[in-house]
Amino acid sequence: MNRLIPLASPDDPRIDAYRVIKERDLVGRGGRFILEGRTVLDVALSPRNRFALESLLIAESRAQALAPLLAQAPEGVPIYTASQAILDGITGFHIHRGLLGVGLRGAEPNAAELLARLPEEALVVVPLGITNHDNVGGIMRNAAAFGADAALFDFASCDPLYRKAIRVSVGGSLIVPFAREGMAHELIDLLAAQGFELLALSPAGASELSALARPRRAALLLGAEGPGLAPDIMARTRTVRIAMRGDFDSLNVATTSGIALHALMKPAP
Amino acid sequence: MNRLIPLASPDDPRIDAYRVIKERDLVGRGGRFILEGRTVLDVALSPRNRFALESLLIAESRAQALAPLLAQAPEGVPIYTASQAILDGITGFHIHRGLLGVGLRGAEPNAAELLARLPEEALVVVPLGITNHDNVGGIMRNAAAFGADAALFDFASCDPLYRKAIRVSVGGSLIVPFAREGMAHELIDLLAAQGFELLALSPAGASELSALARPRRAALLLGAEGPGLAPDIMARTRTVRIAMRGDFDSLNVATTSGIALHALMKPAP
Repeated sequence: MNRLIPLASPDDPRIDAYRVIKERDLVGRGGRFILEGRTVLDVALSPRNRFALESLLIAESRAQALAPLLAQAPEGVPIYTASQAILDGITGFHIHRGLLGVGLRGAEPNAAELLARLPEEALVVVPLGITNHDNVGGIMRNAAAFGADAALFDFASCDPLYRKAIRVSVGGSLIVPFAREGMAHELIDLLAAQGFELLALSPAGASELSALARPRRAALLLGAEGPGLAPDIMARTRTVRIAMRGDFDSLNVATTSGIALHALMKPAP
Repeated sequence: MNRLIPLASPDDPRIDAYRVIKERDLVGRGGRFILEGRTVLDVALSPRNRFALESLLIAESRAQALAPLLAQAPEGVPIYTASQAILDGITGFHIHRGLLGVGLRGAEPNAAELLARLPEEALVVVPLGITNHDNVGGIMRNAAAFGADAALFDFASCDPLYRKAIRVSVGGSLIVPFAREGMAHELIDLLAAQGFELLALSPAGASELSALARPRRAALLLGAEGPGLAPDIMARTRTVRIAMRGDFDSLNVATTSGIALHALMKPAP
């Protein structure tokens, strides 16, 4: 492939983004995020990816095997290659199996804009106060698998474009439209104004998920494991529980999202 | 609490088990395993735990707050306390929030014995070739939450009593009876001989999970993400898929177990 650009030094300024240690610093540099690994890059180079790519960086030893994938990279996206010695000299992100990329956030819609675009029949997942990157990634993976139309995160939740969240999402973070802003009540106000039925998942929920008729517009609220959703949130929503065996009513929040999104998935168009 | 036994040195031989770095070495020392953290110890000190405890080890700064929990420890189980300096000198397992324990495997049933004990109506989860500790722990958590009667792991899967698997299971590994042995086909032979319907979960499954009538005896076969279940396993089982949106048919295997166990959960007795 004659598009490959070999690097001669780990200090080459063209790969500065790959040297950033703190992910929040990446946002400051024009709203970037890091992609890593084959599975994520497969999604990133497919039409399902909502974001533009700034560059790719691969181990030269993998260039030949990856040629069919790299051929899908849009024109104008530089593909840098480097020896393992140079890759080892890049002090920021660990090179995950010799395949990294930088994505660009671009103009992100706010929650109100995102909701205004949704079809009449819609399913939205709403993670509140979820700070664990694995769980946020797991929720985005399930949102993509079960065709959620959007995800609304409160600002207390972690960013679904964090490196690890993207990796755990297997690229789902690149597919499902999302916004991350404000407080839980503000998001709930927006959803209520747009006619969404607010379904708050909790072991203490009043209705059982399997007995629930799927609303045409459903918003699935998820709280962090341990504290769960706040009582004032529960008070203004329809609370829903997943039936369990009673003496061990404990599910991971990403698994919970999978069970609930599967149950509420819209029928195929 | 006058049961607490203060330690004066990190080299005290009574806490040798806590110094082991490689978990497989623990098995060699009489079949031990490590418990860590409050949530796991809550289960370990409840009647749901199937295993005996050898000892507990806690930070002395936490002894007072943990007194109500520690009061549930069976008589004869020593509870060691140590200063943070001594805990820091224990070179093996990191002290997870100042609360550790050692459990004893005891006489473990083999797969045939385990199946012979099950009730006529039974649900068994069968992880095959699942080497990731998070996924094994997640499966055991879901097995406990949805009341699976047993778990049968092939020997290629990782041990559900690995420290991290127990932690991710939130103690589910201590509750759900399991065996880990042999090859996939041997386990399947045993299950078939005991009248279990073999349900193999796969994105390529022939039946849809939500359309499945719950068998009285169901065995839920799960393969590793990526390779999935081998074709010769698929050929001799009923293959089942979880409906997804089509262009992103990718679920985490622990999430898959949650969705399927929820769907196949036995009615409350």
